[in-house]
Amino acid sequence: MLDYARYDRIRPIRREGDTLELLDQRRLPAEVDYVVCHSADDVAAAIAQLVVRGAPAIGIAAAWGLVLGARDIEAGTGAEAAALMDPMFQRLTAARPTAVNLAWALARMRRALEAAGEDWRYVLEREAAAIADEDLVANRRMGELGAALIEPGSGVLTHCNTGSLATSGFGTALGVIRAGVAMGRIERVFAGETRPWLQGARLTVWELLQDGIPATLIADSAGAHLMKSGSVQWVIIGADRICANGDTANKIGSYQLAIAARHHGVKFMVVAPSSTVDMATPDGSAIEIELRTGEELLGYGGARTVAEGVEAWNPVFDVTPAELIDAIVTEAGVIERPTPERMAAVFGR
Amino acid sequence: MLDYARYDRIRPIRREGDTLELLDQRRLPAEVDYVVCHSADDVAAAIAQLVVRGAPAIGIAAAWGLVLGARDIEAGTGAEAAALMDPMFQRLTAARPTAVNLAWALARMRRALEAAGEDWRYVLEREAAAIADEDLVANRRMGELGAALIEPGSGVLTHCNTGSLATSGFGTALGVIRAGVAMGRIERVFAGETRPWLQGARLTVWELLQDGIPATLIADSAGAHLMKSGSVQWVIIGADRICANGDTANKIGSYQLAIAARHHGVKFMVVAPSSTVDMATPDGSAIEIELRTGEELLGYGGARTVAEGVEAWNPVFDVTPAELIDAIVTEAGVIERPTPERMAAVFGR
Repeated sequence: MLDYARYDRIRPIRREGDTLELLDQRRLPAEVDYVVCHSADDVAAAIAQLVVRGAPAIGIAAAWGLVLGARDIEAGTGAEAAALMDPMFQRLTAARPTAVNLAWALARMRRALEAAGEDWRYVLEREAAAIADEDLVANRRMGELGAALIEPGSGVLTHCNTGSLATSGFGTALGVIRAGVAMGRIERVFAGETRPWLQGARLTVWELLQDGIPATLIADSAGAHLMKSGSVQWVIIGADRICANGDTANKIGSYQLAIAARHHGVKFMVVAPSSTVDMATPDGSAIEIELRTGEELLGYGGARTVAEGVEAWNPVFDVTPAELIDAIVTEAGVIERPTPERMAAVFGR
Repeated sequence: MLDYARYDRIRPIRREGDTLELLDQRRLPAEVDYVVCHSADDVAAAIAQLVVRGAPAIGIAAAWGLVLGARDIEAGTGAEAAALMDPMFQRLTAARPTAVNLAWALARMRRALEAAGEDWRYVLEREAAAIADEDLVANRRMGELGAALIEPGSGVLTHCNTGSLATSGFGTALGVIRAGVAMGRIERVFAGETRPWLQGARLTVWELLQDGIPATLIADSAGAHLMKSGSVQWVIIGADRICANGDTANKIGSYQLAIAARHHGVKFMVVAPSSTVDMATPDGSAIEIELRTGEELLGYGGARTVAEGVEAWNPVFDVTPAELIDAIVTEAGVIERPTPERMAAVFGR
């Protein structure tokens, strides 16, 4: 049993009185500052602007957003409230398109709300808390399941941020890394800086540093060279959507690492709660990949580095096909070399 | 015949009177500013600090550095001068380890100097000018040879900067792109931003913009996703050293792109003058890969983005094995699917 108390001193989503406080991840690690949300719209804006990011975290934030939004609603039953709150559901759903956890959390909130009677406010709040709590429990379970796959003495490479900042706590891929380090299976951790938003450089190595886990930062383009050096045995990433065949959408660059990993015989692990699994989407070709403004590539932190007049193409996710994935780790079980049949055996349909 | 006059309005290396002026590539595109070098040591420092970069350009700059250094030398013959200038040769050679063009240019200068009589100063100056002039001629020839390999209507992806800024003019990989666009063979140009130093974002798209060639900037990690979209048919890069078997050292990230290109059936072209070919190095395992300070990865455009206490691993080159290369284009000819035999047929030994 890991000493979980030593992790999760970072709380990216705080419910405080009538507000939701979101740790502003755009400003980390230089500043630890919270954005205070008073309404569902505030939360939708915070999600769209990346104040809060990470597939599980945006689902949790959206659920709390509905709790904030409910305060202005007068309704006698949950079904009545759900109808009145429909525009809020719409705006929160639209805040980001790729991560299925957002739609999943909102659908779950809607189901609970529609089934509720006059205590619908209480039901809504309880459901949001349950989504957050279950995510933390799932992460701890995934940590143990994933770490068990790793040979002692291994090195791992991760991409983007999948830790406490991206979840309810402990993390998905970073949870596996935390567990693997605690269990003595992981000896070396490398993190890609993750352009354009630098989640790896700004968030992942900062999180790990606070746990006393030294991680070495690399340029995103150095992954293949690192693999060739023999320093890493696994690439471990999170997911924004996992399809019925195992195809996985995740941060741009994941696919490129998966190709390089296969080329070097390095294994590739996807770690995500079952809320990330979307059995209604047969394969990756049906996933909408979010294109963000090219501005994100033209500079950083307010400093423009690129000449005026330059265009940029900024897809912020890509799809790793199932055949390049060695293991999908969820709290419901591990799917090795995913196929539609193996996925269905765990997730039904 | 291309209208070459429309290119090369940028002159990164200017011989002015008793000085050498180097366009400060660390500050582009925000500022167009020259660093003035008065001695061989000034030039060595400018090379080490990336004022001037790009394999052919650092060779040319070093050659001119010797011309500056010669002014303080009193010698009756070239052989005498060469002996006295030995420390300058050493310091210039040590400025950067990976690009062979630097060692090549210095060896060529030394040979010319040692053979010279009392006119050794003139010989030295003439040899430096020849190195620069021949590079430009080679680039134009490579542009034509490389562009001829590309099907009309193609899209290409390049990495780092290989244009006028990296050479005597026109460019190596960027020369092929310029020629390919002029010949109607290339319709779409994509450039990776090239962390950590952002040569693609700061230099390549800026250079192309001045030629009226619109290029689309992408994150380095988006290469595989771009290839999957079908938008590019070739990846075209330069080289810092090409071994006797065709293994090629180039900017970090080149290897990762080569693996992704092969995975997608996208072709991979290396463009470099024959001064980049090092027949004395049998394969890539013998190449020293320059490790630069991790500091280069801890910030972006002068702003620190990473927490204090974080370590970074910053190899700035990697090696693409010959089997992932479809064509090596030099002014001496094109080597398709390079092998030791095909390389020897063009470069001897």
